[in-house]
Amino acid sequence: SGSDALGRWINIGLILLVLANVAAAVLETVPSLMLRDAAVLRGFEAFSLVAFALEYGVRLWIAPEDPRYRGLSRRQARWRYARTLPALVDLAAWLPFLLSALWGVNLRTLAILRLMRFVKIARYSPGMQSLFEVLYAERQSLLACLWLLAAAVLISASAMYVAEGDVQPDRLGSIPQAMWWAMATVTTVGYGDVYPLTAIGRVIAGLTMLTGIIMIALPVGIIATAFVDVIKRRDFVITWG
Amino acid sequence: SGSDALGRWINIGLILLVLANVAAAVLETVPSLMLRDAAVLRGFEAFSLVAFALEYGVRLWIAPEDPRYRGLSRRQARWRYARTLPALVDLAAWLPFLLSALWGVNLRTLAILRLMRFVKIARYSPGMQSLFEVLYAERQSLLACLWLLAAAVLISASAMYVAEGDVQPDRLGSIPQAMWWAMATVTTVGYGDVYPLTAIGRVIAGLTMLTGIIMIALPVGIIATAFVDVIKRRDFVITWG
Amino acid sequence: SGSDALGRWINIGLILLVLANVAAAVLETVPSLMLRDAAVLRGFEAFSLVAFALEYGVRLWIAPEDPRYRGLSRRQARWRYARTLPALVDLAAWLPFLLSALWGVNLRTLAILRLMRFVKIARYSPGMQSLFEVLYAERQSLLACLWLLAAAVLISASAMYVAEGDVQPDRLGSIPQAMWWAMATVTTVGYGDVYPLTAIGRVIAGLTMLTGIIMIALPVGIIATAFVDVIKRRDFVITWG
Amino acid sequence: SGSDALGRWINIGLILLVLANVAAAVLETVPSLMLRDAAVLRGFEAFSLVAFALEYGVRLWIAPEDPRYRGLSRRQARWRYARTLPALVDLAAWLPFLLSALWGVNLRTLAILRLMRFVKIARYSPGMQSLFEVLYAERQSLLACLWLLAAAVLISASAMYVAEGDVQPDRLGSIPQAMWWAMATVTTVGYGDVYPLTAIGRVIAGLTMLTGIIMIALPVGIIATAFVDVIKRRDFVITWG
Repeated sequence: SGSDALGRWINIGLILLVLANVAAAVLETVPSLMLRDAAVLRGFEAFSLVAFALEYGVRLWIAPEDPRYRGLSRRQARWRYARTLPALVDLAAWLPFLLSALWGVNLRTLAILRLMRFVKIARYSPGMQSLFEVLYAERQSLLACLWLLAAAVLISASAMYVAEGDVQPDRLGSIPQAMWWAMATVTTVGYGDVYPLTAIGRVIAGLTMLTGIIMIALPVGIIATAFVDVIKRRDFVITWG
Repeated sequence: SGSDALGRWINIGLILLVLANVAAAVLETVPSLMLRDAAVLRGFEAFSLVAFALEYGVRLWIAPEDPRYRGLSRRQARWRYARTLPALVDLAAWLPFLLSALWGVNLRTLAILRLMRFVKIARYSPGMQSLFEVLYAERQSLLACLWLLAAAVLISASAMYVAEGDVQPDRLGSIPQAMWWAMATVTTVGYGDVYPLTAIGRVIAGLTMLTGIIMIALPVGIIATAFVDVIKRRDFVITWG
Repeated sequence: SGSDALGRWINIGLILLVLANVAAAVLETVPSLMLRDAAVLRGFEAFSLVAFALEYGVRLWIAPEDPRYRGLSRRQARWRYARTLPALVDLAAWLPFLLSALWGVNLRTLAILRLMRFVKIARYSPGMQSLFEVLYAERQSLLACLWLLAAAVLISASAMYVAEGDVQPDRLGSIPQAMWWAMATVTTVGYGDVYPLTAIGRVIAGLTMLTGIIMIALPVGIIATAFVDVIKRRDFVITWG
Repeated sequence: SGSDALGRWINIGLILLVLANVAAAVLETVPSLMLRDAAVLRGFEAFSLVAFALEYGVRLWIAPEDPRYRGLSRRQARWRYARTLPALVDLAAWLPFLLSALWGVNLRTLAILRLMRFVKIARYSPGMQSLFEVLYAERQSLLACLWLLAAAVLISASAMYVAEGDVQPDRLGSIPQAMWWAMATVTTVGYGDVYPLTAIGRVIAGLTMLTGIIMIALPVGIIATAFVDVIKRRDFVITWG
């Protein structure tokens, strides 16, 4: 239990390190802060690299002690572990940056890669697994919803293209442009950069909005139900490793 | 089972053909791509026509072997099958284009007709039938929701027309114009092309937004519940035919 | 059953008459249609008045035959019926217009009154009663939601007022103005006529958006559950009278 | 029961006093009303201060009679009560204003503090406790949702930053700016102050909108289910004290 408490503190430290990394990657892109070449950020980046590499190494080292790999040789256990999703996420948190130091990569791409470290938090978070389970369990129904949404967007967009293609040729002059409008309408985002001007176009838009409510209701219903099942079936336990 | 695997591959091929058709129909409307007279698209269109006509012919030919039409003569079975919704969808995927080649139809109308081929995918998609079942089973409750929404839009629109008809005569100067605003507000789309300017108008808009949340909650609740029932009652099986 | 079929046809005729009345009231407000003094609309209005008055009279006349009023004298039964909500809705469909002909009322007010006839449809619609039952059964929870929403709007608005009151004095220069922004944000309508410009204002807006998702989730959950209960308890039957 | 009726009337009076206070605090910020120095508002504020202080004193005085503090000395019971959340809310309704009279505080800050009195209503409202119970019971799942939302916003924002950072450097020129756009899109608020202009940017936005529907569906499902459980478990009783 002494090592349990230690493990908990290391976990919290790693979560904080990830959050600090994400914050740094986000703020670095703000030109007015002029953080791009700040020495402190360079130092922090180097420290993070070492920490994440160390975490990866330790986890790989102790993999053979995991009961799931019982009966395998130490080398086999480590190789099996290295190919799991959590191990790959951990690897992606430091390896690309080491390589980029050797070859030199676009700064913007590096910022994105650094943001991906945020995904690491998923492994420390209780309940996250349940969310993914729900989405995975209902993948077929959700795909059917996606098809319906695609059909709704296509039909709305083509109707709007016919109705207002000549009225607003710069905004609704092709079906892809009209699909942009239809997507923003069906999902009820409604930026307001494109909207119908004629009476017939507004009727089409009204029907698209109604479709949008149904399009929201379907996945909500599917996910809600599935989530209930998963919540009832399992406790949320923090899984380390 | 050898013919099962073949059927599966033909299915996948037809789905890809439909998707390619939809993509072509969508991209053709983009003026800058200048695809409208591209020879490759003409060839692809001809190939699709033949493929869809062939699919229709084969399905019609083997209809008498369907156990649902047992006890009917071959001619009766085919005629019965030809009047089913899937058969009509299949027919609409090629016949209008053949006819248009004979008589000549507006290019924009043709593009829309080609998009309708997207509906064909519904017959290959597992789970799609369940979604339609849900919407059909709850058609009466959903109609009541639609009535409530229409009432909410009418009441909001007429209140806003009284409140701001004189303030913004070009945007809220008639009830149909105010209904456009009310529809975008109740469905929470909120384009932002019309919004109230006076204090009383904003109070009306606030109440309309509250109504909108209820208007979304009702169909979500109805559909969610119905979907649960349908999911529990049936497995999702890919139905061929 | 012969009289049943007759009753059904009369019902359908009355629904169509109501819809035509609503359409007329809506279209009359469009200046470009110049319907305000059209003779045909005057005639249609007179016909509707007579029809609705006749409907009201017949219902009042046959009220004593309703089993609910058994044991009352004819006069008592009619008086009891006249005070029910459906009877008052029927009365409101014709009496005010008769009175307005005598005294003369603002044209815009009349248009609104005419729109209220749309409410009459509720009595012919199956399932409508269930929707109202749901909203009534959960009135206490929905009121608590309303309180939460009011609290969220007040807190967001005052925070935004402190943050950007000086930055955008014409749009966020007082708490009522900020409440207009907060309301459009919490309900996810997002017109885009007011939005924060500073970093701290955007953080406040982000938190307000998150609150908005919770604010939508609560009534959806409440209504969804209640609706399920009501659906399961009762069949949807068309109730005449 | 005579004292019960009295308690009920005092409750209603206090709720009305809180509402009047909130209305005054809101309207005071409207410059055109010139209420800031109105004598009547000064008097009302003084009266409210006394009333809230009196309420706090009485509740503190009768705390030892609460069965929950049985077995404690009168002093201990009062000290224990004074540290409960409702007692602190009651304290915050008058103490800061007394102190501000002594030291002098920014007027805008005072307005906000006065708005916080609205929170006092929660203790008189039936059903409110259930809402908080639901949110508390599902705090872990809701936190996981929050993480997912943060991940979706980060990924969308960084993708959009890469795609359109050079196209709209003043609106999407840094990840924090892009996060503002992503937040408004994922929550389907869609102000329309920032939106993509390029084809690739619109594809990213479309995927972000789809994510938004999932992001709304998850908490709705979680809260809906939890609410059902809480509703079924308990009656809504007005709790005094």
